[in-house]
Amino acid sequence: MFVKGLKCRECGRKYPKEPIFVCEWCFGPLEVEYDYSAIKKVFSQKELEKRPPNIWRYRELLPIDGEPVCGLNTGFTPLFSAQNLAQALGIKKCYIKDDSVNHPTLSFKDRVVAVALSKAREFGFKTVACASTGNLANSVASQSRASGFDCYVFVPYDLETSKILSSLIYGVNLVAVYGNYDEVNRLCAEIAMTFRWAFVNVNLRPYYAEGSKTYGFEIADQLGFRAPQNIVIPAASGSLVTKIYKGLAEFYQLGLIPEFKTRFFIAQAEGCAPIVNAFKEGANIIKPVKPKTIAKSIAIGNPADGVYALEIVRKTGGYAEAVSDEEVIEGIKLLAETEGVFTETAGGVTVAVTKKLIEKEILPRDEEVVICITGNGLKTQEVVVNHLKPLIRIKPNLEDFKKHIKGGE
Amino acid sequence: MFVKGLKCRECGRKYPKEPIFVCEWCFGPLEVEYDYSAIKKVFSQKELEKRPPNIWRYRELLPIDGEPVCGLNTGFTPLFSAQNLAQALGIKKCYIKDDSVNHPTLSFKDRVVAVALSKAREFGFKTVACASTGNLANSVASQSRASGFDCYVFVPYDLETSKILSSLIYGVNLVAVYGNYDEVNRLCAEIAMTFRWAFVNVNLRPYYAEGSKTYGFEIADQLGFRAPQNIVIPAASGSLVTKIYKGLAEFYQLGLIPEFKTRFFIAQAEGCAPIVNAFKEGANIIKPVKPKTIAKSIAIGNPADGVYALEIVRKTGGYAEAVSDEEVIEGIKLLAETEGVFTETAGGVTVAVTKKLIEKEILPRDEEVVICITGNGLKTQEVVVNHLKPLIRIKPNLEDFKKHIKGGE
Repeated sequence: MFVKGLKCRECGRKYPKEPIFVCEWCFGPLEVEYDYSAIKKVFSQKELEKRPPNIWRYRELLPIDGEPVCGLNTGFTPLFSAQNLAQALGIKKCYIKDDSVNHPTLSFKDRVVAVALSKAREFGFKTVACASTGNLANSVASQSRASGFDCYVFVPYDLETSKILSSLIYGVNLVAVYGNYDEVNRLCAEIAMTFRWAFVNVNLRPYYAEGSKTYGFEIADQLGFRAPQNIVIPAASGSLVTKIYKGLAEFYQLGLIPEFKTRFFIAQAEGCAPIVNAFKEGANIIKPVKPKTIAKSIAIGNPADGVYALEIVRKTGGYAEAVSDEEVIEGIKLLAETEGVFTETAGGVTVAVTKKLIEKEILPRDEEVVICITGNGLKTQEVVVNHLKPLIRIKPNLEDFKKHIKGGE
Repeated sequence: MFVKGLKCRECGRKYPKEPIFVCEWCFGPLEVEYDYSAIKKVFSQKELEKRPPNIWRYRELLPIDGEPVCGLNTGFTPLFSAQNLAQALGIKKCYIKDDSVNHPTLSFKDRVVAVALSKAREFGFKTVACASTGNLANSVASQSRASGFDCYVFVPYDLETSKILSSLIYGVNLVAVYGNYDEVNRLCAEIAMTFRWAFVNVNLRPYYAEGSKTYGFEIADQLGFRAPQNIVIPAASGSLVTKIYKGLAEFYQLGLIPEFKTRFFIAQAEGCAPIVNAFKEGANIIKPVKPKTIAKSIAIGNPADGVYALEIVRKTGGYAEAVSDEEVIEGIKLLAETEGVFTETAGGVTVAVTKKLIEKEILPRDEEVVICITGNGLKTQEVVVNHLKPLIRIKPNLEDFKKHIKGGE
C-alpha cells in the first residue's frame, strides 16, 4: 500500500515489486522505496501508542501490502536500563535491547523472517528457504510451520549442535553444506535461480532486510520517541547496521523523533572482522576474509552490506572494533553476571567491543549507549561450558553442606 | 499496601507478613491474604489497559508493599490462537500461553522469582536461594544478579546439562545434591532454618507462589477479559494449578471477568504422576512416588500443593491425565511442527495430555482449550536429539544438491 517499488541503491534505477534483489544494470542491491508523504498522513506517535506491541505496529514502514502471515508475537522485546553493567563498564548510562527473548526463536532474525514469509505469501511461493549461520535457520524453520510453507534451510556443516537441533525440531529439511557460510550463500543463489523458492535472504532480500528496521524503531519508541546518543551493533553482513540507521532516519523524517544524531559503532570478532579491517585501513571496499571465530552467527567473511555499514559508521562519527574469542567469552559472562541476561557469542562480541571502546575513550563515559543483544546463549552453550565457576557437589545432608560451604567459599 | 497478612490454608489462623510458610498450630501452608475491597476501588480493566505489559501491571494482587526490584520485563508473554495445532488435535479452538520466551530465563519461573526477590528485599535478606529442578535455579541465578543478591541454588546432581550451565553462567553458587528433588527440597528446608537466607520456595513460598497468578491474569487479560472454557496445566508441586485458579477467581471476584466456569486439567508424566494417581483412585491424599521420567522439570514425587490442585480439578469438572516419555517427545514435536514453538519436556507433557484428553472425549472437541507452555526446549535438548529428521549432507555445489534432493525426498 505504501510501497512504491524497488530501487537500486547504486544507480537509482527503479523496479516493480517482484522477488528480485540485484540491479540488472549495475549489479547494485535493490532496496524498498516507500511513499513517505502518504505514510506521514496516517502514521504518528499517537496512533502508534494504540497498537499492540509487536513488529507490525510499524506496518506502514514494512514492505507488505496485505495482512502478515506470522510475527504477531514477534518483536517489542525488552529495552532496559542496565545500571549494573554501566557501572562495571564505567559509563554513565547503558541500555540493553534484548532480542534474546524474541518470539518464537530467541533472536532478531524472527523480525526479518516474519516480514519475508509474509511477502513470500503475497508473491505466491509455496516453499521458503535460506542460507544461514544458525539463527536465521531456526527462525525460518519455526515460522514456516506456523504459516504453512514447505521449508529448506541451508547451513555450514560445522554449526553449533543447538542451532542444528533447533531447526530440525520443526521437521523441516535441513541441508548441511560442507563449506563456510559464504559458500553456502553462493550455493543458495544458484538454487534460487533454478527452483521457484523464496530464499528469504537471497531473492527476497530487499523485503526481508526491512524487518530489521523494527529493531531500530523499537529502540526509539521504547526510549520515549528519541534516538540514543550511541549504539553498538554486531555486524555479520552489515545489514542490521544499515537497517537500524534507516529505521531511525525514517522516524526522524516522519517527525516521530526530534533529532537523529546517533553515533553508530560496529562490533566484530577478530577472527572475522572484514568491516573493522576496512574501517581501520581507511578503505572504501571490504576485503573478504576466511572466518575463524567462535562467534559463528556473525562469521560472514564477505559481507553483502559491509560498505554501506562502513559508510554509516564514518558519517555518524562512530567506530568499528573487534575483540578476541577470549574477550567474547568474557563479554558473555559480564552481561550474565551484571544483568542476568545470557546471550550468545554475537552478544558477547557486542558487550566486549563496548567495553573496549569505553576503555579506549572512544565511547564517551558521560554519555549513554544502547548495546544490541541479538541472540540467546542457550544456542551457543559449548563456548562457555569450560569457563564456568565449578559446581559444589554434596550429599543430601546439612553437615555435608556446611563442610563444603566452609571449604569452598 | 493491599496485603493484610498471612493465613493458614487449613485452620485459618492468621499471621503477620513475615518470612514464614507453615502454620505453627496445624502445619498447614500459609497463604497471602489481600484486602479485596480496597483493591476493588483502584483496580479495573480501564486502569489495567494503561499499564505496561509485564507482571507488575497486576501489582495490587501481588504481595509486595514497595517497588519491585526485578521483573520489569517479565511476563505478558504471547497468548495466541494455535489453529494448526487445533486442527491436528481435532478440537475447535486452541490457545498457547507461551512462557518459553519469558524474560529473562525462558520459563514461567521468572514470574515467581521476580515476586520473591522483591519480597526478599523488603524483608532485608542479602542472600537468596532455592531448591530447583532447573528452571527455578536459572531464574533465581539470573534475577539475583540484576537485583544484587548473593545467591545459592540447589539442584539434583543428574539435571540436564543446559539447566546446570544456564545457572552457572550467572556466576552464582550452584550446589549439586546427590539425591532427587524431594531430597534437595528437604535439605533446603533444613538450611533455611540454619542460615538467614531467603529460600524463594521454602521460607518465602507464600509470597513466591503468588507470582504464578500472573500467568492466569494474563490469560484472562489477553482473551479480552474472560476466562477460557478449558485449561491444561502441567503439575509438579501443583502450585501453578492452584495459583492460576486463584488468579482467575480474583479477577471474577473483582468484576474483571463476567464469569468463571473454567475446567482445570492436570498434566503429568507417567514416571511421576502422584496427583494423577490420586485423581484416578478417587483418593484425597497424595501418595509420594519416586520420579523416573525425562520430564525432570516437573519430577516432584511429593507435591506440596498436590491436594489443593486435585481439589480444583474435581470441583471444576476437569480431569488429571499422564503420558509416557515417548508421548512427551511426540508432544514436543507436534507443537514444533504445527506452531513453530519449541518447548521443553514439561510442555511436551501438556500437549500430549491434551491430545489424550481429546482422544478420550474428555475434552469436548467443540470447545476451546488453553495449553500452558511453561518452558523452552533449548534447555532439554538431549531428550529430542535422537528423534529428529536426519540432516541432508551435501557438497557446496548445485549438482550435489539436486542429487540429494532427488534421492532424499
